Amino acid sequence: MTSPYQIRPVGYVESPLTDRETAPKQGIEVAPQAWMVFEPDVADGMRDLAVGDEVYVLTWLHQAQRDVLVVHPRGDPHNPETGVFSTRSPDRPNPVGLHRVRILAVEGTRVRVANLEAIDGTPIVDVKPVLDGGR
Amino acid sequence: MTSPYQIRPVGYVESPLTDRETAPKQGIEVAPQAWMVFEPDVADGMRDLAVGDEVYVLTWLHQAQRDVLVVHPRGDPHNPETGVFSTRSPDRPNPVGLHRVRILAVEGTRVRVANLEAIDGTPIVDVKPVLDGGR
Repeated sequence: MTSPYQIRPVGYVESPLTDRETAPKQGIEVAPQAWMVFEPDVADGMRDLAVGDEVYVLTWLHQAQRDVLVVHPRGDPHNPETGVFSTRSPDRPNPVGLHRVRILAVEGTRVRVANLEAIDGTPIVDVKPVLDGGR
Repeated sequence: MTSPYQIRPVGYVESPLTDRETAPKQGIEVAPQAWMVFEPDVADGMRDLAVGDEVYVLTWLHQAQRDVLVVHPRGDPHNPETGVFSTRSPDRPNPVGLHRVRILAVEGTRVRVANLEAIDGTPIVDVKPVLDGGR
């Protein structure tokens, strides 16, 4: 069935992380630096991103399983099964990743950021500024 | 063109806000309380949401214009035109709304929250816990 709500990637992540299994899990490890590479046709949308900005990056976790509703958090079978909306599991009905990152460099439509825990090739859905109070 | 990345709403917002023009703009006004009404088939995913939890709600801002790349922030023509990825404008290529809210009540698959600035009928894409440090 075709949904009326379709994501058109505005860019892609370039990252040394190439494997979901070795990607860090949020809240524990430190993720590496990565590039956000925007599509040329959205260049106007990213023209005001600047070094030092803190932004939310929304990604489409394209390797996720979408039929998962409960998980053992962090993949640890000792953690009790938990509904996915109370976890950051990538496996969930709409696998949108939410990453809070700081911009380190801007080179044309390429933006370097710290702490983006997404594997190489992950589609970028959106970028938004962090508001006061961390919203 | 059909994108391989399709959002299937996991629920809908019930809100006294019925009009995009009168909806509050993030960062200034206080939004009203609203209900998140989940689809029955994702009940397991929301079973661990609890009163007091702080969560991010991702919505699909279904009335947004997707061909907009620069805006006058807050719709004020005195504000200089800014790339949408540096604003919280609902008009953007993938109109996913990001809302940080606190859960006030849970009644079956209905969840009451404070400060959800989305109009009545807005599709819900995802819900995620706020992590330490506001991530």
